[in-house]
Amino acid sequence: MIGTLKDAIGARYVLTGDDAAPWGRDWPGTYTSTPLCVARPGSTAEVAAVVRACAEAGVPVVPMSGNTGLTGAGKAEGAVVLSVDRLNTITAIKPDARIAIVGAGVILSALHDAAAEHGLMFPLTLGARGSAMIGGLLGTNAGGSNVLKYGNMRDLCLGLEVVTPTGEVMDLMSELRKDNSGYNLRNLIVGAEGTLGVVTAAVLKLVPQPAAYATAMVAVPALDDALALLNRLQVETGGAVEAFEYMPRAYMERHVRLTGKRPPFDTDYDVNLLVELGATAARDAQPGPDGTVPVVARLEALLAEGLETGAVLDAVVAQNEAQRAEMWDRREDAAEITFATKPFVNNDVALPLEQVAVFLDRMKTRLAKVDPDGSELAIAHLGDGNVHYTAYISRDDKALYDAVVEAVEDVALELGGSFSAEHGVGLSKLNSMARRKDPVALAMMRSIKAALDPKGIMNPGKVLPG
Amino acid sequence: MIGTLKDAIGARYVLTGDDAAPWGRDWPGTYTSTPLCVARPGSTAEVAAVVRACAEAGVPVVPMSGNTGLTGAGKAEGAVVLSVDRLNTITAIKPDARIAIVGAGVILSALHDAAAEHGLMFPLTLGARGSAMIGGLLGTNAGGSNVLKYGNMRDLCLGLEVVTPTGEVMDLMSELRKDNSGYNLRNLIVGAEGTLGVVTAAVLKLVPQPAAYATAMVAVPALDDALALLNRLQVETGGAVEAFEYMPRAYMERHVRLTGKRPPFDTDYDVNLLVELGATAARDAQPGPDGTVPVVARLEALLAEGLETGAVLDAVVAQNEAQRAEMWDRREDAAEITFATKPFVNNDVALPLEQVAVFLDRMKTRLAKVDPDGSELAIAHLGDGNVHYTAYISRDDKALYDAVVEAVEDVALELGGSFSAEHGVGLSKLNSMARRKDPVALAMMRSIKAALDPKGIMNPGKVLPG
Repeated sequence: MIGTLKDAIGARYVLTGDDAAPWGRDWPGTYTSTPLCVARPGSTAEVAAVVRACAEAGVPVVPMSGNTGLTGAGKAEGAVVLSVDRLNTITAIKPDARIAIVGAGVILSALHDAAAEHGLMFPLTLGARGSAMIGGLLGTNAGGSNVLKYGNMRDLCLGLEVVTPTGEVMDLMSELRKDNSGYNLRNLIVGAEGTLGVVTAAVLKLVPQPAAYATAMVAVPALDDALALLNRLQVETGGAVEAFEYMPRAYMERHVRLTGKRPPFDTDYDVNLLVELGATAARDAQPGPDGTVPVVARLEALLAEGLETGAVLDAVVAQNEAQRAEMWDRREDAAEITFATKPFVNNDVALPLEQVAVFLDRMKTRLAKVDPDGSELAIAHLGDGNVHYTAYISRDDKALYDAVVEAVEDVALELGGSFSAEHGVGLSKLNSMARRKDPVALAMMRSIKAALDPKGIMNPGKVLPG
Repeated sequence: MIGTLKDAIGARYVLTGDDAAPWGRDWPGTYTSTPLCVARPGSTAEVAAVVRACAEAGVPVVPMSGNTGLTGAGKAEGAVVLSVDRLNTITAIKPDARIAIVGAGVILSALHDAAAEHGLMFPLTLGARGSAMIGGLLGTNAGGSNVLKYGNMRDLCLGLEVVTPTGEVMDLMSELRKDNSGYNLRNLIVGAEGTLGVVTAAVLKLVPQPAAYATAMVAVPALDDALALLNRLQVETGGAVEAFEYMPRAYMERHVRLTGKRPPFDTDYDVNLLVELGATAARDAQPGPDGTVPVVARLEALLAEGLETGAVLDAVVAQNEAQRAEMWDRREDAAEITFATKPFVNNDVALPLEQVAVFLDRMKTRLAKVDPDGSELAIAHLGDGNVHYTAYISRDDKALYDAVVEAVEDVALELGGSFSAEHGVGLSKLNSMARRKDPVALAMMRSIKAALDPKGIMNPGKVLPG
């Protein structure tokens, strides 16, 4: 097998033993494995050759890009890890059409930089942007902090190139906004976590870069006040809110403690928000005679009004890019901050917006029952109702872990939520899929998997419970 | 078979003979058939019962809602027409969550009205809105005039209920913006034109109703000027353009001639646009001291500037709702106006925006070669690059029809376009699918169809060439 792969893509691009070890571990260290080898093909044709070799030999193949996932979707025990990291070319940025054509191995921040050179923006962003790659972002239908305004990866993808589980190359590289020509295979592959094929390239939407931002840290009395503020901002600005992120007191304290960075406010508050407005209309970015930028002035005025009525407790508006970066860094440290304490149970649930507060209230009670010595840390993409709820459990115990997950799911689903928002299923939510997903839908997914991957070699055991 | 269906859903809801005839004809009269019968189930359970009965008997079932399609997807020779028209309940409008939960038989305009009562809007609209139903709109992933701003049906759909080809009920009725839980079956069913199951209900997104509109008829020298105007409007307003529709001189003349309605301008122009801006920010809708609404004032100012530089030849801004309605009626008469002359070949292609003018130029030459006595009429959702190109051919001849279609496809595809934008494939584009679609993608579609509809009863012969 390894010899075949070396012949197909060159010996130096097939890693084994210690060289392959970094691919046998996810970054929080939750999932470890010993891959058979790591193949790093340099072209779509080479990806197809690797998949065909695996299909012939009946060896599992695990597609991998930046290895920043949190669900074990990249666990590759005895499998060929197919790393797309060498498919890292930004083939084209077309400013008039506002699209980017990219290889699956392009790192998210590299795409951000390339789009910025044209005054455009690839709007999806998340803490791992310096290492996450397009292939994996598409595989998990990743979200992040700007979904509220711009959608997730599926919404931002126009076209795909895919190597199928039988090693054929499928060309769905449409650059068009409207293209109804048969079943939408693109949206099926996006979010399938590499179980239906390997994404090798994509056509992605770009958007105009806001000409100015207004970014603030805001403290409010309670989550209901936060939602009222969000609604007010959206109405006043015509939907200019780009990010609306929630961080609780516990997160702020941990952040100061673990990073040594300074807190945003002199006082500690329960409900802290990172709010960002983007000026998409020219006149909202044009500084007035006194030098103030309208979008910033508007945010300041709305926050001042809130301070007067008590709907806002405290607020700091970024006065320059460095202050804005500091606000974003605080939010984007979340994964490191959260996973610094072990053992933890991380959950990624979605809720109707107005139920986020109810969820958090109920979880306090539920967690206390399941693990009286446990504690919790919940941050949220509040504008999407997406809560990253982490429980620190009192002992590293599989049964306790599962009980916490089930409690979180119970509460989320009784409020009309989903057990999975943006991280995907991988291995970590197989039980949840079995327990919670509509059985007819599960059966349909299994039929599709069997039809498209008859030998079952493509990231087997992930997404679909056995 | 008919007896079984009568037992399942009540005899009065199973139509045969003359009663069934209206379902045996599409509205332009292009496709006619004699259905075995028409079944009008009154609930999801009854839909499932009808499908199970058809599956058991091996009788084809053709899902149908408003019967406004243009591609023959509803042709039902010898088949059971499964009409979802009785599933016409708007189950809920949830203003805070901005969603509507609707049956597949709800008529589009009824949903528009229901949303308006809450100050909200279901933004998708098209000429057939008074008869098109949600089920068919989802089946074809319909588009229309506001896709530029709000997306097509797929973008506006959060959840689905589906009766599968084996007669099971699949519950995908998520109300959440983020919900990554396995393969995205929703997007597979949407646009599958009833070949993978029957949509019985849906969760749809609503958006805030713009507090004011600025609507205008604008004449410009050429399509390039139109695109420059679109770009200018988008930058100045931060993306407030809701519609940007192109009508050529020939359409304007036909419209006056066939409807007797008055033209928008005293002079005839080659390139006429219907432009609409929506005021989504509160202050853009607030009349100033002189009574002018800012969004209207802004459009007037930009058009005045264009008139001065010659980039705009003429413009009329609607001063009230009646004038606005007149402008929209002119555009929405398109299907009637277009199909009043026969024989015609209607095409629905998508192009990169900057290639629309090139496409129209090249088609003049190509059509003259294929059918020297033919003529053409092309209107477009210009903001999406979606051209409805109709050729009036000189004789009702299948070979000539096919030659025109192939010419249109040739030109569209050499410019990076698609042979199908928003009308779907049905029967009319089976050849196009066979000729133009990536063969690996076609094979994958066939695998999925075979896996999900093993008996091949669900709208057979549509979408996938045999």
